[in-house]
Amino acid sequence: MRTGVTAVLPRGRDSALTPAFGAWFPLNGNGEMTRAAWLEDSGQLAGAVMITNTHSVGVVRDAAIAWRIKQGAADASGYWWSLPVVAETWDGYLNDINGFHVKSEHALRALDEAKGGPVAEGNVGGGTGMICHEFKGGIGTASRVVEVAGAERRVGVLVQANYGLRDSLRIAGVPVGQHLRKHRAYTEPEQAPKSETGSIIVVVATDAPLLPHQLKRIARRPTLALGRMGSSSGNGSGDIFVAFSTANAEALKGKELSRAEFVGNDAMDALFTATVQATEEAIVNAMVAAREMHGQDGHYAIALPHEELVKLLRQYGRSPKP
Amino acid sequence: MRTGVTAVLPRGRDSALTPAFGAWFPLNGNGEMTRAAWLEDSGQLAGAVMITNTHSVGVVRDAAIAWRIKQGAADASGYWWSLPVVAETWDGYLNDINGFHVKSEHALRALDEAKGGPVAEGNVGGGTGMICHEFKGGIGTASRVVEVAGAERRVGVLVQANYGLRDSLRIAGVPVGQHLRKHRAYTEPEQAPKSETGSIIVVVATDAPLLPHQLKRIARRPTLALGRMGSSSGNGSGDIFVAFSTANAEALKGKELSRAEFVGNDAMDALFTATVQATEEAIVNAMVAAREMHGQDGHYAIALPHEELVKLLRQYGRSPKP
Amino acid sequence: MRTGVTAVLPRGRDSALTPAFGAWFPLNGNGEMTRAAWLEDSGQLAGAVMITNTHSVGVVRDAAIAWRIKQGAADASGYWWSLPVVAETWDGYLNDINGFHVKSEHALRALDEAKGGPVAEGNVGGGTGMICHEFKGGIGTASRVVEVAGAERRVGVLVQANYGLRDSLRIAGVPVGQHLRKHRAYTEPEQAPKSETGSIIVVVATDAPLLPHQLKRIARRPTLALGRMGSSSGNGSGDIFVAFSTANAEALKGKELSRAEFVGNDAMDALFTATVQATEEAIVNAMVAAREMHGQDGHYAIALPHEELVKLLRQYGRSPKP
Amino acid sequence: MRTGVTAVLPRGRDSALTPAFGAWFPLNGNGEMTRAAWLEDSGQLAGAVMITNTHSVGVVRDAAIAWRIKQGAADASGYWWSLPVVAETWDGYLNDINGFHVKSEHALRALDEAKGGPVAEGNVGGGTGMICHEFKGGIGTASRVVEVAGAERRVGVLVQANYGLRDSLRIAGVPVGQHLRKHRAYTEPEQAPKSETGSIIVVVATDAPLLPHQLKRIARRPTLALGRMGSSSGNGSGDIFVAFSTANAEALKGKELSRAEFVGNDAMDALFTATVQATEEAIVNAMVAAREMHGQDGHYAIALPHEELVKLLRQYGRSPKP
Repeated sequence: MRTGVTAVLPRGRDSALTPAFGAWFPLNGNGEMTRAAWLEDSGQLAGAVMITNTHSVGVVRDAAIAWRIKQGAADASGYWWSLPVVAETWDGYLNDINGFHVKSEHALRALDEAKGGPVAEGNVGGGTGMICHEFKGGIGTASRVVEVAGAERRVGVLVQANYGLRDSLRIAGVPVGQHLRKHRAYTEPEQAPKSETGSIIVVVATDAPLLPHQLKRIARRPTLALGRMGSSSGNGSGDIFVAFSTANAEALKGKELSRAEFVGNDAMDALFTATVQATEEAIVNAMVAAREMHGQDGHYAIALPHEELVKLLRQYGRSPKP
Repeated sequence: MRTGVTAVLPRGRDSALTPAFGAWFPLNGNGEMTRAAWLEDSGQLAGAVMITNTHSVGVVRDAAIAWRIKQGAADASGYWWSLPVVAETWDGYLNDINGFHVKSEHALRALDEAKGGPVAEGNVGGGTGMICHEFKGGIGTASRVVEVAGAERRVGVLVQANYGLRDSLRIAGVPVGQHLRKHRAYTEPEQAPKSETGSIIVVVATDAPLLPHQLKRIARRPTLALGRMGSSSGNGSGDIFVAFSTANAEALKGKELSRAEFVGNDAMDALFTATVQATEEAIVNAMVAAREMHGQDGHYAIALPHEELVKLLRQYGRSPKP
Repeated sequence: MRTGVTAVLPRGRDSALTPAFGAWFPLNGNGEMTRAAWLEDSGQLAGAVMITNTHSVGVVRDAAIAWRIKQGAADASGYWWSLPVVAETWDGYLNDINGFHVKSEHALRALDEAKGGPVAEGNVGGGTGMICHEFKGGIGTASRVVEVAGAERRVGVLVQANYGLRDSLRIAGVPVGQHLRKHRAYTEPEQAPKSETGSIIVVVATDAPLLPHQLKRIARRPTLALGRMGSSSGNGSGDIFVAFSTANAEALKGKELSRAEFVGNDAMDALFTATVQATEEAIVNAMVAAREMHGQDGHYAIALPHEELVKLLRQYGRSPKP
Repeated sequence: MRTGVTAVLPRGRDSALTPAFGAWFPLNGNGEMTRAAWLEDSGQLAGAVMITNTHSVGVVRDAAIAWRIKQGAADASGYWWSLPVVAETWDGYLNDINGFHVKSEHALRALDEAKGGPVAEGNVGGGTGMICHEFKGGIGTASRVVEVAGAERRVGVLVQANYGLRDSLRIAGVPVGQHLRKHRAYTEPEQAPKSETGSIIVVVATDAPLLPHQLKRIARRPTLALGRMGSSSGNGSGDIFVAFSTANAEALKGKELSRAEFVGNDAMDALFTATVQATEEAIVNAMVAAREMHGQDGHYAIALPHEELVKLLRQYGRSPKP
């Protein structure tokens, strides 16, 4: 199967029953993300953030509800209802997207097998059939630790990277895409896209205590990283970003009155910078980790050529350790 | 089956291939509507507007994609992709919502059987298991014809009405809800909701030529009608409104350059008023048309008592024709 | 002078130095409110909420900055800067609006003389030259006390009411406007507006502890009250609402880390209802308190006729105490 | 005077009477832009886009209204009213901002003297006292010509650049800021800002025919250029972008029914890319054109050292023509 599902659980096993403050930003809305309206109004994520292909958002969404029901009780009001977050990028070049190959069990497995620790990158989960800057793309992650309000705070980013034209690719500020034109991503040159048809989903997680309106500001920052990668966020792209904070678990137990910790607006700069940097790195990581793939109908996506990339970076004055 | 699907096709059989200018507004976001981000950015609806129950949005969405694929060719760029609009309200009191009874074939049938002419109201389609102001609710419609920019323009509204507490119900400005307390909606008094847990989806259609940013203003107006009905738009309510214009079909064929007709902003007042009035009437029509229903676990929803309603309206100085 | 300035100080004398959580909602944006972008992103009001006429927003804004400078120190970062909230409605029928009669000193006086206790209503401050439903309008206020999260919470509303056509006026659900057509608001019938050209500013204050994203939901609720008054929010209307909470003063002192109290989303319904009810009542109060006014060029605005209003309410089954 | 006003007239002398389709986007809202709500709802700019310092928005706004009144007749409805766009960035380091030195006549002169042709850059108009990446900043412009929908279309960008820390500065992808630390911007090291306190206003003009919802997408793209320059859009920054189209003049004469030309969404990519590129270049141009300035209290801002910049670009593999 050249497609799949990725699940991010903000609070691990507790995600189904304890929400997290969250927010979203659609830089270019040519994509889907469910729960958009309630994420905005409630300021909360509940359950997982799921990422899959464009035509499988529905099956994954209903599966996430079924999974939620299995986790235990109805909500505090005694009612059963659930509005999960499911986002997508389009994998219809490598994957037979109209075959609807993602099934409920794939979503349930992604949820059941989600765990802490290092995240597999490249051609995995929802990232399986992705293409980025006309190289094989997929899942990538990166993080930063910054001092904010007297403590170390983490910002972690996961991307499902599937956007961008070859020419526009910049890595570490170097216009590498223009040097890598000879590496054809596609079996036949005429198959090459004339415009950006992909998308990128960015999930920003932090343990810094932020309120929903502050997370909304965080959720806009991946845009700046996309700029650094050379993107202009094309019309065909669904560039949708979601941010959440793992802090304030106690405050989100559904009580009538709670107290939430939050950093002052003046202390947010380090988190903004960490978000931009980690997003930029996560996209590069997705491309570096991804492996070439042969897809439906003889379609083919080449992987980013590591050696040439290193050579180009050196040529432009960057000196990665050999 | 005490649940179902309703399909609205903005351009009838042409809906799959010719988009319509559209916009949305979430008054209270405790609900789902897919395609939100792309409706906002593209300014276009493509395909149908589907309405179902909360836990069936996924299956209906993927079915709408399958239906789109059956309609014919890929899009102008040669790619297959689709971002349908599916909205919902919660029917988990009468319907066994965790049974996931809506199947792909129900959505396909709703799409295939959609036709012009009078619309069935009450306990039909997505409106089957709905409850409104603690009376049986469901689908309702109403329309207005107004003169705008030198021609007659139509504003039609369809609602899936599932919101509201009994006490707050006002009809034609009369606080009828407070007089109808004795009619218990629920088998056992203790089952009565303590807060608004329902929702309302409002679809506003017009043949007046409006641009997307103008339709966004139309999409906010159903709020004023909800106010007239006595609602405060409770926290648990997913009050989501979508508006589209059937004009400008030629301009939306995907050409590189088109010309769209639009009315001046100064000429929009009649459309605003028509939207408010038709929404108010459509909600009343949904309740008047709905019939009592026995649901899962002995649950029961009473219908609005017509005779008492007429009596109350007279008592408050309204004189509907006998 | 047939125009003026109204100042609302969220925290009284402390308003300049201690912000308040706040939010806004533009139902129909044909009006001005400064600080919109920073209110949205910071989630905070700082200083006063000022209301004046359309052509005097600038002078009042700069005066509010000058007033802020007089209050004491620069901000925590050591910089002097200020982004005050100034909103407006149009009084160009009674007031010679192009004469720019509001001066800096009027704004400073409004700020200096702001005090707690009962609020003057009708033809006062920014409300001096206002017209509402073609009767004399102006400033109105109302409040509700509700139990939320185990304590009594207050919701207070101040409006500067300047919107609406005569025919559409509903009071307590009674279509009184249609019965009051004979009372001409204007010297000459041909002066009567053909469309809604006015506006309404609504300021919602509460001591309930709410976070900015929750206040944004509150800020949408005055729409429902406008619906009850009969408005369709015309194209020419600047219907802009701002909400703030006086709670959490300690949390907003600019520290790097703070804790804010907030009520659970499930507990917000009573606040929503209180907002709608108090807004509806505040508009009626503005019209009941306002007195007829002769303006520039022989222009004239009639006051709402109290006795006839009472008679009409009785006729429609309402029984206000005699 | 170390401060001033810049005026952009979308349609030259016709700007007061013929609006232009427009939109805005606040990337980080710590700044002011008037007319925000009406620009959003009407989809139109009317009159000029003015840019000045933070504490002078009011005086410039009211002056823009007075200028509008001088241009001729009331609007089509016979009413005098005006909601001009005035944005700002903070110049309180070099300029005595609490002295309120910008007067009405400065704004009127900026409006009267606005003309077509090359635009003065650097320390001029609203850009006089600006600082960017801790070098002297100010006004910058750049443009691109792209083929869209069968014709050449222009995208022109004007920035008032006043944002950014030294270290983060990237030019053409080269991290020049980190190499230029020794050039102190400030008289005393301890005066150096610890966080981003500036802002940037970006005005994007195009003759491509775009509808308001399409211009909104254009208005988000300068964000990507800021990313390329190294910005993370700090908390203290008012990064506000406005876009307009000079096409469709006939369609915006206030008629009841008009026809607007627009390019298909699929044809927008070249405009997105042009916007990002022109914004990036305009910021660099602002810094290259700006000259060192001595301000109030012995404050001082150094200019970007041209020779060293060229040397650094060469060192990193860029080869600007000598």
